[in-house]
Amino acid sequence: MKNPVEHLQGSKALIDDTSFLLARASALSNAAGNAALAEFGLKVRSYSVLELAGDEGRTSQREIADFLRLDPSQVVALVDELQRADLVGREPDPRDRRANVIVATPRGLELLEEARTKVRTAVQTLHADLTESERHTLAELLRRTAFPVPQSH
Amino acid sequence: MKNPVEHLQGSKALIDDTSFLLARASALSNAAGNAALAEFGLKVRSYSVLELAGDEGRTSQREIADFLRLDPSQVVALVDELQRADLVGREPDPRDRRANVIVATPRGLELLEEARTKVRTAVQTLHADLTESERHTLAELLRRTAFPVPQSH
Repeated sequence: MKNPVEHLQGSKALIDDTSFLLARASALSNAAGNAALAEFGLKVRSYSVLELAGDEGRTSQREIADFLRLDPSQVVALVDELQRADLVGREPDPRDRRANVIVATPRGLELLEEARTKVRTAVQTLHADLTESERHTLAELLRRTAFPVPQSH
Repeated sequence: MKNPVEHLQGSKALIDDTSFLLARASALSNAAGNAALAEFGLKVRSYSVLELAGDEGRTSQREIADFLRLDPSQVVALVDELQRADLVGREPDPRDRRANVIVATPRGLELLEEARTKVRTAVQTLHADLTESERHTLAELLRRTAFPVPQSH
């Protein structure tokens, strides 16, 4: 099988470009995740919304949008889809009665457990080339990259 | 400023989920890159196509799509856009006369140099929380994640 890095020797600039590498690594894990989640009728995005709905934090649609870096309208569509499948429900936000929080149903929580195992296995398989220690380092560095500390002025 | 990790304590599952972290880190670097590239009339995707067109490897549209993990139709639209701006041209592929390779124009190469500096500075600013050594480790682990070695059977 052709190794794309060796093949496209000329694209040295992109191979050294962290934002390109993030985009490509993310696209690959997204594809692997979507494939693993297909049997549940989920995709990585709807799965992520379900994860947040399964939390005890009682998360609003706006918080979901901020956290997943999605457009609020995309989140509404994802919540609608999950609600039609009886995996989440909308409840009044105890902090703000005009707003809703998204809460997983018992069926949603059950599916979530299974889906989480599948999607994690799929990504581990994709990253099988990395040792466990390297996978931990990657996750830790990504965590700091995904949630940068606000710079002081 | 509110720290989203602390705030959403409940979403522990996602905070430990490498594919979620990749998606969020990628979304942030994409936004920072797009902001930095706006003055050139580019976005991260069109910039990446321009990088590949600027290589000496003489890259076809299909190779660009594979490399960037985009749909071929998306690549056609991006190449059209870059061609209208006189940044790239299509030339016959020396390996296959029915196909084209995408080649940067002199103006494209000039813009590319400037754009590359801007986009890299933007991503470094975003990742200012990481030491230089950590940034290198992240890039190396991402490189292996973005271009996994095909598993033997």
